[in-house]
Amino acid sequence: MNPYHTPTEAKHPANVRSADPTVSILVVGAGAVGGYYGAALAKAGARVTTVHRSDYEHVRQHGIQIDALDHSEHFRPHQVINRITADHVPDYLVVALKALPDSHTSDLIRPAVGPNTVIVMLQNGLHVEETVQQAFPANEVITAMAFVCLQRSSPGHIRHSCHGRITLGRYPTGISPAVQQLGQLFEAGGVPCQLTDTPMTARWIKLVWNAAFNPVSVLAGHATTAAILAQPEGEALVKAIMEEVIAVARAHGHPLPDSLIDTHLTSTRSIPPYHTSMALDHMLGRPLETEVILGAAVRAAQQVGIATPLLTGLYGLMKILERRGE
Amino acid sequence: MNPYHTPTEAKHPANVRSADPTVSILVVGAGAVGGYYGAALAKAGARVTTVHRSDYEHVRQHGIQIDALDHSEHFRPHQVINRITADHVPDYLVVALKALPDSHTSDLIRPAVGPNTVIVMLQNGLHVEETVQQAFPANEVITAMAFVCLQRSSPGHIRHSCHGRITLGRYPTGISPAVQQLGQLFEAGGVPCQLTDTPMTARWIKLVWNAAFNPVSVLAGHATTAAILAQPEGEALVKAIMEEVIAVARAHGHPLPDSLIDTHLTSTRSIPPYHTSMALDHMLGRPLETEVILGAAVRAAQQVGIATPLLTGLYGLMKILERRGE
Repeated sequence: MNPYHTPTEAKHPANVRSADPTVSILVVGAGAVGGYYGAALAKAGARVTTVHRSDYEHVRQHGIQIDALDHSEHFRPHQVINRITADHVPDYLVVALKALPDSHTSDLIRPAVGPNTVIVMLQNGLHVEETVQQAFPANEVITAMAFVCLQRSSPGHIRHSCHGRITLGRYPTGISPAVQQLGQLFEAGGVPCQLTDTPMTARWIKLVWNAAFNPVSVLAGHATTAAILAQPEGEALVKAIMEEVIAVARAHGHPLPDSLIDTHLTSTRSIPPYHTSMALDHMLGRPLETEVILGAAVRAAQQVGIATPLLTGLYGLMKILERRGE
Repeated sequence: MNPYHTPTEAKHPANVRSADPTVSILVVGAGAVGGYYGAALAKAGARVTTVHRSDYEHVRQHGIQIDALDHSEHFRPHQVINRITADHVPDYLVVALKALPDSHTSDLIRPAVGPNTVIVMLQNGLHVEETVQQAFPANEVITAMAFVCLQRSSPGHIRHSCHGRITLGRYPTGISPAVQQLGQLFEAGGVPCQLTDTPMTARWIKLVWNAAFNPVSVLAGHATTAAILAQPEGEALVKAIMEEVIAVARAHGHPLPDSLIDTHLTSTRSIPPYHTSMALDHMLGRPLETEVILGAAVRAAQQVGIATPLLTGLYGLMKILERRGE
């Protein structure tokens, strides 16, 4: 049973939006993930505006440089801004900010959320859509998950080392015309795209990977995925963490397949040694997505009364580590 | 039920050795622990020779400086050597080396082990006595455990920040005349000393502390004991690890009391913020006592079929971390 569809496989209802090349997109938090996918959407013909904080001046002058293993490309956004106003109301507003407990995403994006703006949550973790959907109950929210190895190597520079596939679905369930149109744009921009009518299950699938590799990579001294899997004890640890997350997901009604761990490990082994986003953040002294990844998993386990000694232990280690930096 | 005795409480059989001020002691591995306790034994009147590797020249010329919070003292060993020969056969040979898998302790000490030499294993971890007892089946082996906060701050310099109590017993069980004499020397040198006829149980009691605080302090970014306990998640993590170790110890026949976790936490809270020996070793890029602490606990759990997800997970993290340094 494959719960995913490609955009071209998906049914096209009568009211589907056309892949209008003048569709407008606002990418909020155009770091590595936002810059990379913004560039793809621009390649597909969309009018992509990017919002920056620290990189604003650099990107305004020089655009965004994306270096992949086998080629480089340059992305000059339609507009580069550092403040979101009512002038920037788009068809799709893509939130590619890091998911931190204290980020006031709804307040930040409010000026640019028009009545027809579709909000695309391109973030890690669990529950990233809830507060935004509550803040904008009339707007469609799309869940988006990127499976990609990216790194912002310097201001306006993104290093892309593997993958890129994106998964889309309407929050909390379904495949809407907007999901289909966005999927077609991604595909047209060269990004393999899967549509799913159960995006919350897809979030758990991604969380299974993130909850294992992200904290382990940080705690074990910025170990790459390859370094983690090179040790028998490392592979066993990753599997044991994944088993805990899968048990919690199933108790919450998400039927993750038994084969998921093997799928994740095979996929991870197929890529070059890779520093997780959390390891990169930790190296650079940036805030970590501990709460949205581990905290959310631990709380979800508590809700259904499932013991998760490893997740809880890793969460404890991360909490001590993070307070050390304060 | 107090399984411990002080040396003066213990029975003195007819054949007890007298606290002969000319008793000779050879301290092998005179780092922080060996230097500190060697100094105490010298203060009690013993003839203490110390063996050094990297600090040899410094200690030979300048002796060992011990800085405590409220006072300093200087220890000039009877003899300072860098190679163990048959000239150095002592009454007591104290092994204060770090307990590493590849340390060939028996080979190292063999030249100085005479027929009457008592071998004192002043090391962390489990099973440190076994191979030495096998190598010298006719010699008495004493188990010694130090509860102390020490740091070698520079060659020949030791910083002592808290505690110092030592626990002694004959390996594998019993309180022998030699144990009593050594205990009296420690007491005479100012070190509170407890004798136990179940030193393997005492090893597990110490392991409960070590298996929790040592790896957590390393993995959580060189967190002090105080920083670990300052977080509710940190305290919960320490307790959960300790519970796993206690369950394994009990399954191996060591009746650790329910109150042990509280005892350890209260004792730890009573000392100033403290870097564990494993955190100090990791900061300085030295080999870690992972195997003798975590590895031994995990293997002991496997022997009795007890699940220890946290110990196993911490062991996995440490194995990845240690290979990173290779």
